[in-house]
Amino acid sequence: MPELRHDPIQRRWVIIATERGRRPSDFAKLEPEQAGGFCPFCEGNEEKTPPEITAFRRQGTSANTPGWDVRVVANKFPALRIEGDLDRSGKGIYDKMNGIGAHEVIIESPHHEINLANQPLDQFQKIMKVYQLRLKDLMNDLRFRYVLIFKNQGVTAGASLSHPHTQIIATPVTPRTVAMELDAARNYYDLKERCLFCDIIKQDMEDGDRIIAQVDGMVAIAPFASRFPFEVFIAPLEHSHDFGVLSDDGLAALSKCLKEVLTRLNLALNDPPYNFMLHTAPNTKSKARRPSYWSTLPNDFHWHFEIIPRLVRTAGFEWGTGFYINPTPPEDAANYLRQIEIK
Amino acid sequence: MPELRHDPIQRRWVIIATERGRRPSDFAKLEPEQAGGFCPFCEGNEEKTPPEITAFRRQGTSANTPGWDVRVVANKFPALRIEGDLDRSGKGIYDKMNGIGAHEVIIESPHHEINLANQPLDQFQKIMKVYQLRLKDLMNDLRFRYVLIFKNQGVTAGASLSHPHTQIIATPVTPRTVAMELDAARNYYDLKERCLFCDIIKQDMEDGDRIIAQVDGMVAIAPFASRFPFEVFIAPLEHSHDFGVLSDDGLAALSKCLKEVLTRLNLALNDPPYNFMLHTAPNTKSKARRPSYWSTLPNDFHWHFEIIPRLVRTAGFEWGTGFYINPTPPEDAANYLRQIEIK
Repeated sequence: MPELRHDPIQRRWVIIATERGRRPSDFAKLEPEQAGGFCPFCEGNEEKTPPEITAFRRQGTSANTPGWDVRVVANKFPALRIEGDLDRSGKGIYDKMNGIGAHEVIIESPHHEINLANQPLDQFQKIMKVYQLRLKDLMNDLRFRYVLIFKNQGVTAGASLSHPHTQIIATPVTPRTVAMELDAARNYYDLKERCLFCDIIKQDMEDGDRIIAQVDGMVAIAPFASRFPFEVFIAPLEHSHDFGVLSDDGLAALSKCLKEVLTRLNLALNDPPYNFMLHTAPNTKSKARRPSYWSTLPNDFHWHFEIIPRLVRTAGFEWGTGFYINPTPPEDAANYLRQIEIK
Repeated sequence: MPELRHDPIQRRWVIIATERGRRPSDFAKLEPEQAGGFCPFCEGNEEKTPPEITAFRRQGTSANTPGWDVRVVANKFPALRIEGDLDRSGKGIYDKMNGIGAHEVIIESPHHEINLANQPLDQFQKIMKVYQLRLKDLMNDLRFRYVLIFKNQGVTAGASLSHPHTQIIATPVTPRTVAMELDAARNYYDLKERCLFCDIIKQDMEDGDRIIAQVDGMVAIAPFASRFPFEVFIAPLEHSHDFGVLSDDGLAALSKCLKEVLTRLNLALNDPPYNFMLHTAPNTKSKARRPSYWSTLPNDFHWHFEIIPRLVRTAGFEWGTGFYINPTPPEDAANYLRQIEIK
């Protein structure tokens, strides 16, 4: 069972893999790219993954066989385990709990060699629909306070398998980054009775020079204080705290917008490695003691995607301070991306 | 002039290089390792760096000529600029200020090919003394609220020149990571009237299994909630909030301890890339409005070094949540490092 441990200095939870801990010699071979080898995510190899959790399948095909468009399975090497109790405990100054959670893989396509940006729009939309279905389903497990959907594209961005896939991790604590966003948004709402994210989007729309794309009510922005060059923020223009309630029309708009942005990034930056992640409201159904902000949550949080191209290395300054040196002003980045011609 | 911009969602400052912003094509050639080319940090090339700020020199040699052991110069491509006023301003919802600060390079040796761990002890001690001298001197500039000393070892850890060097950045804001540590330490002190760090060190000494090394009053620990495999925390056993007041005996002890730990890491992990950074108290002399915690600072903060070997890649999960998956339990890491035989 992995262990969740709390850092009393940074007030952050860390997942410690206590079972098959990596030894010094395991780090010599740092995540080599697989080259043309066997791929457990390819169509036809369904029996090599843990059993299917859900899939979009052609009629008449059965689970764990070929015939799917998007397929979800448990991660074979999960960071957190699904069975068990949290069993919170303290030892002196330290706090820990069992590493309970879920860790799933969304296989975006039966085909090995297709970049997400190049998926046909209907397939892209199926992938987004699966994001939403898994998010909603995992939030029925009342042990989970947060569900994070994220994608690592390319070895530099942490992908260990090159077959196109997205990951989901459900955690029994609200992650620090999300808690900080919730906190900032709540404080802002307390002061102004307006959503912080709505106000940011409004000003960016007025300023205009940080807008990358705008599609059917979804907007892609280069954030004013971007940490990384060509960072992108995507959100609905209309206020909504919960990605889970986005309509199918909304999913279609999001698919168009995200596909366009990824295509622009790929063309401008030559298929860069990137991470993206969805920040949506935490699981308000959770059994956990409800933090005070949950009552105002529908007003003050605003779901969004963040895309981080991995073009520069983070070094001692960033790790030591939590602030960032960005060599490309977001207004320039937005301008480069807007100017890309999409055929 | 670079710009400091505030992220209203994550409440974090970002340095935006507004002058020679990097274009998309600049990222194609991602920081290649220089191989046997010209090195501006080597002895004899003193005129290729900005003028010397300070140096340990053999008697009779003059500034910006050969004859030095440790040499400090301004960074030729500084992230922040030393001249000017902060000029804080707002634009709608956003806040920014001029990118005022200092960015210096401590050249650790006239020799190109020497790893810090392999420096003779007296040279190591000179380097630590220079850390202290520059820290104290920069804190005389009342515009600066924080001075960060950090080292990037190896290309993966963000080093762009392989000649052994450390960097210093002085910032006009307290960095978020440091502010969070100060905050946690102050809250703990308010509750218990004891230093959080002292209590952590005490428990780790009692538990014993996370101790890596202990030398003359300095202790090296694998933190209970280590984010990364083989992460190390080094601090004095005796409470002290300010690295600037460490005695020469203390610097000698620190040098021995840090050199031993880096040697153990190099032997265990085959000269891994790493970052280390010093967290010491912020600049209490600064003109800035004094946050309430400064009055209790001497009691509740405790200076320390953090060493982060760069063995695993951070991916979407870490960026999306701010929490970490560590594949090596710190008790195992400490055990491996203790068992290394140093000749």
